[in-house]
Amino acid sequence: MTEFELIARYFVRPVRERQGIGDDCALIDVGDRTLAITSDLLSENTHFFPDVDPASLGHKALAVNLSDLAAAGARPRCFLLSVSLPRADPDWLEAFSRGMFELAGREGCELVGGDTTRAPRVAGHPGPVTISVTAIGEVERSSLRGRGGARAGEDLWVSGELGDAALAVANGLGQVRLDEAFARACRHRMEWPQPRVALGMALRGLATAAIDISDGLLGDLAHVMERSGLGACVDARLVPRSDPMRGIERALQRRCVLAGGDDYELLFAAPPERREAIEAASLKCCIAITRIGTLTEEPGLRLVGDEQGIDATLRGFDHFAGAAQA
Amino acid sequence: MTEFELIARYFVRPVRERQGIGDDCALIDVGDRTLAITSDLLSENTHFFPDVDPASLGHKALAVNLSDLAAAGARPRCFLLSVSLPRADPDWLEAFSRGMFELAGREGCELVGGDTTRAPRVAGHPGPVTISVTAIGEVERSSLRGRGGARAGEDLWVSGELGDAALAVANGLGQVRLDEAFARACRHRMEWPQPRVALGMALRGLATAAIDISDGLLGDLAHVMERSGLGACVDARLVPRSDPMRGIERALQRRCVLAGGDDYELLFAAPPERREAIEAASLKCCIAITRIGTLTEEPGLRLVGDEQGIDATLRGFDHFAGAAQA
Repeated sequence: MTEFELIARYFVRPVRERQGIGDDCALIDVGDRTLAITSDLLSENTHFFPDVDPASLGHKALAVNLSDLAAAGARPRCFLLSVSLPRADPDWLEAFSRGMFELAGREGCELVGGDTTRAPRVAGHPGPVTISVTAIGEVERSSLRGRGGARAGEDLWVSGELGDAALAVANGLGQVRLDEAFARACRHRMEWPQPRVALGMALRGLATAAIDISDGLLGDLAHVMERSGLGACVDARLVPRSDPMRGIERALQRRCVLAGGDDYELLFAAPPERREAIEAASLKCCIAITRIGTLTEEPGLRLVGDEQGIDATLRGFDHFAGAAQA
Repeated sequence: MTEFELIARYFVRPVRERQGIGDDCALIDVGDRTLAITSDLLSENTHFFPDVDPASLGHKALAVNLSDLAAAGARPRCFLLSVSLPRADPDWLEAFSRGMFELAGREGCELVGGDTTRAPRVAGHPGPVTISVTAIGEVERSSLRGRGGARAGEDLWVSGELGDAALAVANGLGQVRLDEAFARACRHRMEWPQPRVALGMALRGLATAAIDISDGLLGDLAHVMERSGLGACVDARLVPRSDPMRGIERALQRRCVLAGGDDYELLFAAPPERREAIEAASLKCCIAITRIGTLTEEPGLRLVGDEQGIDATLRGFDHFAGAAQA
């Protein structure tokens, strides 16, 4: 059972609210306003290593939630933080809160609540750090978008460059040997993702559907295709990547760029007649974007400029895939 | 360092929002409406045992958050659930979601989002279950209340009966031997707390301050005293408890009733002239309430009808008290 099937089977129920589970954010109407709400949980050893810089962890715990708000085009407003910690270490807490509040201050998002609890020991070993953040933003009701609003013939765009965060993991696992400068750059991409909040807001009224790329480009594109009831054609050569990434061995490069995960860039759809307006929005907030393909009536995903076709290595990341069912 | 000092030192910053950290709920204004938002995290071995009935765990994870909304007088609206699980066990998930959705349905509160992640193994052992719930409700702007709105001379009230949940823990630890029927009743109180949502709403415009009793009566009363800048006088004999509790040995009984924790009853303050209206509100929603004391100009807490005075055994529960600082 995959993570997505697991969620669907037990937790998805019809809701009266505007938008529930299965999108980057829930959308709820409050009087004449609409709020976007999202919650992400980070676990030691699953999402970060025990020796992670706590400042980057504080940053990332908030960043991944702001990235969901960005997909919804929301302006961040406030967040709640719940942490389970094996001990109250002042140095760790100082760095963690500094990293978190730096990003929070930059994005105008205030910490308003949460919970702190002791992580229980496991068989005599310190329990793992677990961090749960819920972020709340405001969207414009006239320009709501989720994953399912796209139409056939629309362009597919992505922001930034993909794959460096995944390459940092491969480097850490010894699957590749990067030179020191590139390794540092990749690790920085992994640990300090920049949520595309300004771009998300600039695309209000322009993008018809959007998602943040956290599980890998093709995995997240599959969500947009499914929710919009469409297929897609992507030119693999156009998917943006850093210059040093182009020097990486072909198979690893395509896995990182097309299915790497942890990118926290935006993937969005928009009608071709809005290309100029979209490029202007990108320039206005100084975040590069690239047109990588098209949504199609014909179902399924076709990859152009890629000799191998789509195989298991390109499926989106899934915590529970292949998990013991017992 | 206690949990509360820890939170204060690193995470409390001034906020523009109406109410931030340090209360049961954050309050944020959205247009002409006000939302109450709260987040609580439950960890295996800290908040529940590995062999807990998953249905009661699903219930309790939501109930403790609805209890915070009740303190704020909010009408529950929706919630987000993030869970870290060692494996995807269908039986466990079925029972957990059933317990959660039963309460959610009863209180009109919809699951709209969240996150599911695999709990990492710790030194070869399955990682702990961690559950984080964020609940959102609507409050009436004309009757906002937090912990800090009470005045000297006002009555102190509590709902329900206190101490049974704490007695269940003492029984589990072998500190007392309860007869089977009472043990079962106490365990039920611990595992299936009933959030006082209806009472919380019925007290709109009547209670000047309220808190839900999760850390023990005196510990939570201390928060109200501190935030309201007042002292209090409580008649220990008046604090409501179940009949079988009255048969329990004196020292354990006072510890459970006055400082037991996990009660999820409401403690609230109100002017004496509202006594009749408050009793009518209690009858209307069929939740018993008891007047236990008074708020005073004179700082500090005085206990009447208790020969021992306040000692360390009566301090509120604190996950990090006495924790290793290293």
